[in-house]
Amino acid sequence: MRIYGDSISGNCLKVKWAADHLGLSYEWIETDVMRAATRTPEFLAMNPAGQVPAVILDDGRPLAQSNAILLHLAEGSDLIPADAYERARMLEWMFWEQYSHEPYVAVARFQVRYLGKAVADLDPKLVERGKAALQRLEDGLAAQPFLVGDRVSLADVALVAYTRMAEEGGFRLADCPKVQAWIGRVETALNIA
Amino acid sequence: MRIYGDSISGNCLKVKWAADHLGLSYEWIETDVMRAATRTPEFLAMNPAGQVPAVILDDGRPLAQSNAILLHLAEGSDLIPADAYERARMLEWMFWEQYSHEPYVAVARFQVRYLGKAVADLDPKLVERGKAALQRLEDGLAAQPFLVGDRVSLADVALVAYTRMAEEGGFRLADCPKVQAWIGRVETALNIA
Repeated sequence: MRIYGDSISGNCLKVKWAADHLGLSYEWIETDVMRAATRTPEFLAMNPAGQVPAVILDDGRPLAQSNAILLHLAEGSDLIPADAYERARMLEWMFWEQYSHEPYVAVARFQVRYLGKAVADLDPKLVERGKAALQRLEDGLAAQPFLVGDRVSLADVALVAYTRMAEEGGFRLADCPKVQAWIGRVETALNIA
Repeated sequence: MRIYGDSISGNCLKVKWAADHLGLSYEWIETDVMRAATRTPEFLAMNPAGQVPAVILDDGRPLAQSNAILLHLAEGSDLIPADAYERARMLEWMFWEQYSHEPYVAVARFQVRYLGKAVADLDPKLVERGKAALQRLEDGLAAQPFLVGDRVSLADVALVAYTRMAEEGGFRLADCPKVQAWIGRVETALNIA
């Protein structure tokens, strides 16, 4: 398998972490988004959406969208709960991540860390919604060690990626002690600390 | 099962269509987003994200996120391809829908139709990205009748929801003849024409 990814991207790193956890062998092809490496004709032929991560599976077929890749690679593994309802809740967190967390937490971090914007100059809506996403995680972890059930799942892999980098976007993880402790647990479980 | 949904929302209608296609019985609880029916304490206890659709399954447990609900309800049905790679591609389209299609095509339509904004006053980024999403669908349908394989799947259910309403947001479906024909095929397959 070849993983096309940008090492500064949480969406890409989550695929790497899952592949490592699952013991899959792969070649990592560093793909620099800031230098438009996802806009070349060759890249667009593989993923017309022009986004990383994208993978070429062992049989040569392409697949994109970080969470779809996670679900495909982890099929049948311990990263996906056996119980149907727990699987559904895992998917709920994964879709929520892409819709209500990444567009705020990851985008704020990208603007601050890679575009040089001051935290004070961030769009207030970005900050407000990012904080709301972190608070929702805090609430979701109030009474349990992982997002779904009592062990790490793809929900944690997907959500930890940008949550652990949230301070780079000006968010204060000290305000979310449950989230902080969970980040440590997920890092240990995935061996990425 | 109880489905909490707003009839003006494509995200909610896709759950209804899938449930109808699968022959599931349910009670539809009309939930008016514009009147903040998703912000009541009762609703937030069921779905802390404060979003519709949300369902209460037959065993009383809640589930949210339209595409997670689709995947749970349709498990084992003909709306999910049996082949692992086709399943992964279906998921790729579903995550892409929530990240790169709905935030532009659905949001433009909401602002025009429900907030009374003129198409000419829409954020140009919203229009540009919505057009790009529709073009990506057009390209994806260039050589095949449905988004994955040769029959309708959850990818089509998820994507048709706001695509068929795109003109309400000022997008021209006449520019996307493959998409137009596909909308008709999906409507027929789901019996929602």
